[in-house]
Amino acid sequence: MSKRIGILTGGGDAPGLNAVIRAIVKYGVGQKGWSVFGIEEAYNGLFKPTKRTWELTPDNIGGLLTKGGTILGTTNKGNPFEPDENGEIPAPKIAQSVADMQLDGLISIGGDGSQTIAHRLMTEYGVPIVGVPKTIDNDLFHTDYTFGFWSAVDVATDALDRLHTTAESHDRVMVLEVMGRTAGWIALYAGLSGGADCILIPEIPYDPSAVIHKIMERRGAGKHFTLVIVAEGAISQEEASETLPLTGTSNKFVSGKASHKLADHIGDHLDVECRVTVLGHLQRGGSPVAFDRFLATRFGVHAVDLVENEQWGEMVVLQNNQMTSISLSEVAGTPREIPLDHELIQTARKAGVSLGD
Amino acid sequence: MSKRIGILTGGGDAPGLNAVIRAIVKYGVGQKGWSVFGIEEAYNGLFKPTKRTWELTPDNIGGLLTKGGTILGTTNKGNPFEPDENGEIPAPKIAQSVADMQLDGLISIGGDGSQTIAHRLMTEYGVPIVGVPKTIDNDLFHTDYTFGFWSAVDVATDALDRLHTTAESHDRVMVLEVMGRTAGWIALYAGLSGGADCILIPEIPYDPSAVIHKIMERRGAGKHFTLVIVAEGAISQEEASETLPLTGTSNKFVSGKASHKLADHIGDHLDVECRVTVLGHLQRGGSPVAFDRFLATRFGVHAVDLVENEQWGEMVVLQNNQMTSISLSEVAGTPREIPLDHELIQTARKAGVSLGD
Amino acid sequence: MSKRIGILTGGGDAPGLNAVIRAIVKYGVGQKGWSVFGIEEAYNGLFKPTKRTWELTPDNIGGLLTKGGTILGTTNKGNPFEPDENGEIPAPKIAQSVADMQLDGLISIGGDGSQTIAHRLMTEYGVPIVGVPKTIDNDLFHTDYTFGFWSAVDVATDALDRLHTTAESHDRVMVLEVMGRTAGWIALYAGLSGGADCILIPEIPYDPSAVIHKIMERRGAGKHFTLVIVAEGAISQEEASETLPLTGTSNKFVSGKASHKLADHIGDHLDVECRVTVLGHLQRGGSPVAFDRFLATRFGVHAVDLVENEQWGEMVVLQNNQMTSISLSEVAGTPREIPLDHELIQTARKAGVSLGD
Amino acid sequence: MSKRIGILTGGGDAPGLNAVIRAIVKYGVGQKGWSVFGIEEAYNGLFKPTKRTWELTPDNIGGLLTKGGTILGTTNKGNPFEPDENGEIPAPKIAQSVADMQLDGLISIGGDGSQTIAHRLMTEYGVPIVGVPKTIDNDLFHTDYTFGFWSAVDVATDALDRLHTTAESHDRVMVLEVMGRTAGWIALYAGLSGGADCILIPEIPYDPSAVIHKIMERRGAGKHFTLVIVAEGAISQEEASETLPLTGTSNKFVSGKASHKLADHIGDHLDVECRVTVLGHLQRGGSPVAFDRFLATRFGVHAVDLVENEQWGEMVVLQNNQMTSISLSEVAGTPREIPLDHELIQTARKAGVSLGD
Repeated sequence: MSKRIGILTGGGDAPGLNAVIRAIVKYGVGQKGWSVFGIEEAYNGLFKPTKRTWELTPDNIGGLLTKGGTILGTTNKGNPFEPDENGEIPAPKIAQSVADMQLDGLISIGGDGSQTIAHRLMTEYGVPIVGVPKTIDNDLFHTDYTFGFWSAVDVATDALDRLHTTAESHDRVMVLEVMGRTAGWIALYAGLSGGADCILIPEIPYDPSAVIHKIMERRGAGKHFTLVIVAEGAISQEEASETLPLTGTSNKFVSGKASHKLADHIGDHLDVECRVTVLGHLQRGGSPVAFDRFLATRFGVHAVDLVENEQWGEMVVLQNNQMTSISLSEVAGTPREIPLDHELIQTARKAGVSLGD
Repeated sequence: MSKRIGILTGGGDAPGLNAVIRAIVKYGVGQKGWSVFGIEEAYNGLFKPTKRTWELTPDNIGGLLTKGGTILGTTNKGNPFEPDENGEIPAPKIAQSVADMQLDGLISIGGDGSQTIAHRLMTEYGVPIVGVPKTIDNDLFHTDYTFGFWSAVDVATDALDRLHTTAESHDRVMVLEVMGRTAGWIALYAGLSGGADCILIPEIPYDPSAVIHKIMERRGAGKHFTLVIVAEGAISQEEASETLPLTGTSNKFVSGKASHKLADHIGDHLDVECRVTVLGHLQRGGSPVAFDRFLATRFGVHAVDLVENEQWGEMVVLQNNQMTSISLSEVAGTPREIPLDHELIQTARKAGVSLGD
Repeated sequence: MSKRIGILTGGGDAPGLNAVIRAIVKYGVGQKGWSVFGIEEAYNGLFKPTKRTWELTPDNIGGLLTKGGTILGTTNKGNPFEPDENGEIPAPKIAQSVADMQLDGLISIGGDGSQTIAHRLMTEYGVPIVGVPKTIDNDLFHTDYTFGFWSAVDVATDALDRLHTTAESHDRVMVLEVMGRTAGWIALYAGLSGGADCILIPEIPYDPSAVIHKIMERRGAGKHFTLVIVAEGAISQEEASETLPLTGTSNKFVSGKASHKLADHIGDHLDVECRVTVLGHLQRGGSPVAFDRFLATRFGVHAVDLVENEQWGEMVVLQNNQMTSISLSEVAGTPREIPLDHELIQTARKAGVSLGD
Repeated sequence: MSKRIGILTGGGDAPGLNAVIRAIVKYGVGQKGWSVFGIEEAYNGLFKPTKRTWELTPDNIGGLLTKGGTILGTTNKGNPFEPDENGEIPAPKIAQSVADMQLDGLISIGGDGSQTIAHRLMTEYGVPIVGVPKTIDNDLFHTDYTFGFWSAVDVATDALDRLHTTAESHDRVMVLEVMGRTAGWIALYAGLSGGADCILIPEIPYDPSAVIHKIMERRGAGKHFTLVIVAEGAISQEEASETLPLTGTSNKFVSGKASHKLADHIGDHLDVECRVTVLGHLQRGGSPVAFDRFLATRFGVHAVDLVENEQWGEMVVLQNNQMTSISLSEVAGTPREIPLDHELIQTARKAGVSLGD
């Protein structure tokens, strides 16, 4: 039976969001003949008068597979269960808009914050929602990968390649800071892919002396340059003992702090030129790599199947390379950190990488 | 206990071979203090006087992580159990060389052909061998992925992106031929990643009328161009009924035949400009993408662990995203084809892709 | 004074066409307040009922800087001074359409064929036209470079890089065929940029023995692989003496012929594996490199200045790195070949490259 | 007559240095049969006991065309006419080393600092030297381009592409800081190639209100994101009136200062999320683009010709796309800034770009 559904994208953007949208339209509209509506800037499109919705058709999704970002716009601000600037709770308005638009349900593409909101909108206001996970950090439980992650790893790996040649020419230590506030997946994957000598992740508070030791060890072997990759949430053992751990939603987080702190330490203790690069939003933007387009397409198609089967309240995931789904109620509010006994941690150590401990 | 091992690479080269070698040396030599020897051009280095072996150390593996091909050289000709040009069987010589070099064993990086040879050398001549799988076609049983595959998919996806813009500007049908003689994994993955309108794979003999139909359907929707990706081993239903299936080792295989045959058919039946591109060795060469460097590093490290534990006769594999190993005796001589009910086949159909049937 | 102009793109597409269109709209509409209309599929949009024109504004040119191809569509068929399929000469209709649309003039972006047509439309039918040169072959007189050329060189250079690693691993000879029917600029530039050992161009008919000699010379120096780049219009000395030279507009031209002929010769005379790659439309599609976006932007801006100053009949060109213009009457009907005493020819020889003579 | 020459690379590294070295060896050794020696870390290799020289041959330059950095190592510290840490003036030692090694002369690849040193070594100590210019900033007089520049522009343009999609998705202002302390060539070229809305260069002190105005103007036109590219040496009009201009050799220069200062201003005056990316050494590292490999090869070949002709004291340059040379005495000690009436400045303004004035 024909359906009317809305799509929205929430949280930080990730390469592949548009590819999910395209897949939903290709399957939902192109094959099933449904009506699909894009909702601007996450839930804002359903209650803010300046935002809007529009119909998505095979004609207006040209080029979406390769396009970074999200044509629907997104936001990582605002919670529809808390009063907005006018003191109103948006949630009931959102439910009303869905009813007014005669939508059978929504597909919510977003991170754990967005999915938690989706779960509450469903259980508290009866809005039928299917979820599609999104985080470039790959720190969601229950799914092997999220789209955008390998694109970010690719950018960070390419950065290591570039830093490698100039570091070697000048006998320098290069510190590359990548995303990852509480989980170091990007740093670990890119560090292994790009041949970093040290990989510092939030899960393992580091001893600056261990980094110095690695630099000296390499010098002793005739290698006068060193590549260090640092997750933005990495902290030293000293910091770990002093402070409460940073939370992912902390607004006090300062990009570049982790890498500059480490570089200062190295500069203070060794006669070596140390340079810092903070990748920042370069990891988030741009066209998705093939892996992410592929995964996003599978996610989008599977989400339509969930809607078809009225499996509201489910979120698509990839488990053991296969598409399946879990309940939105199972989406954890905490990021998936790297277990300290993870094979990749062992692999890094065995390959001679220092993890700073 | 310190060990002496040899490494060799066999079969067609794949991006990531050098990254495996690097990981073995980083771990085996750099961490364990073993002696590791590179053997030139697969087993030839152990019996042909013009070939050689040399010691691999952290000093002479610089730059290997990013370098395509294999510094050891490779070959996809010759079987050491059959007489060579002088009428001699190389296998016993190989075993003798391993003994003469006082090697504890070999790490053989190669496809199913290479691993079958490895298994026989071990069982018939007592040469201790650990295997690392390699095929850019990703058509090996027992492993989620092999390195090189995503690099090939990336090249093919990039090609589709390029063909897309020029096809659209000229209202053309573009046919892209990619590798895959008996299994269509590259075509299927790249077709989904690059937005092909038709994906033709060896597993599904195609009806040329279905391709024509797709082109016409798109025209009817105002889209005057079409992208077709064809595995080199794809055949029409007519061919399938007439001929014995091609085998992977057939020397009669002609690159470009599948795509030109299809293009001719389209040109004969429609008033449209149809252009063919055969990617060929572009898929095989060049620097590996991050995914493949990452996987190759894991494979190399795990192979050293197998040697350490004297698990001779095992081959490292990736199963459900985790490193493990299988017996070389389990390596199948037949390629892993795409099951017709595979989720990806369904996903392609749901996304509106014609599979030519 | 405000103007109304039309833009059209003719001939084979080239990366950067959309960037020219964008620059014209950014300057003409955004800064000058003119009305600018896109004309579909070259002059066809002005006389074929199935084709159309539409207004271009800063709102509908988003993403054009990076997008390959041309959003206006193009064609390299048809001459408006010759009868069409209905026996009518399109030229007067075109002039009438320009008048009906109250256009002050046209900007014609195209190769020498398109500019010759532009010149006739202007002189014979009074249609005011400004030209922007386009050819990925860079074989136009009077301009240092045309946009699209460096994008094509980049694709061909990347292909050589990829072939390099696989050639070296397998001791193979790799033959890469690139565009260039009568002029070998792409082959020469990419050959130098990608380190080809032999560069064969139409301007220098080659002796197959010279290629064989180069392969043998490299073997003698311990290098068992060789990279050959061949312009599609390259011919052997024997062919040169037998046949009339191919012309650029010949329909008998067969892509891949030059490279396969050479590969067959090598295979017949040497015990070596020789593989052919024909780049074809991969050179034409895809996003333009920075150089081409930059040049295309300058061309577009300068074309608007010519229109502003009513310098009808002029075509923008780059001379000694500076923007200027020439008369459309000066656009030669013959491609600019590489002079045999050109510095680049000498540079190639000095760098040890064989030019096949 | 056979010659013995030394090559050294000085100053910050740039993509293409290795391609120059390769071309010199290919031509000098491979074709002319000369002996060519690599000198480690600029002039240090000629007087510091920890540094060394070694012979360069076609056998040990494999892979150099594509490899970033310099295999000879480099430094941008130290002046051989000033006392070193032991109070000795290195210059006479350098001259003595050249004599001891029986070198006919040196090829010095470096920026204006390196060439000024070369000129003095020649005039004051009689060391025969030929120069090859190098700066990724493209701010040398007398040459159209230097190698490395287009590679840096390419990296910066790619960064703008990536920032574009995420900026658009989040309605953000993105500030990208690129190299250029006293000359804004990279910012101007990349800004035009990547479609920046504002380009701020050292040559035009900017008014922060002009940037705010541009952001507001775009909002008024429905475009809620803005891309700003800033040369690291860009300063506001207020700073320009207060301070002495920064010099290129100032050690007080702080990377990231220009962009963060601007972002703070925007954040203080507008309700918009503004994010900063500092490209830093990513611009300097990595494989050179085709343009730079091509130019570097021409430079290297031409330098050998100068040596052959004993045109000591000359530096190769590209003028009007042709190779020629100038006297080292003409190398200016001041960087080539962008003239305010330069065509590219006009082009940027015409394309609607704000230059902050």
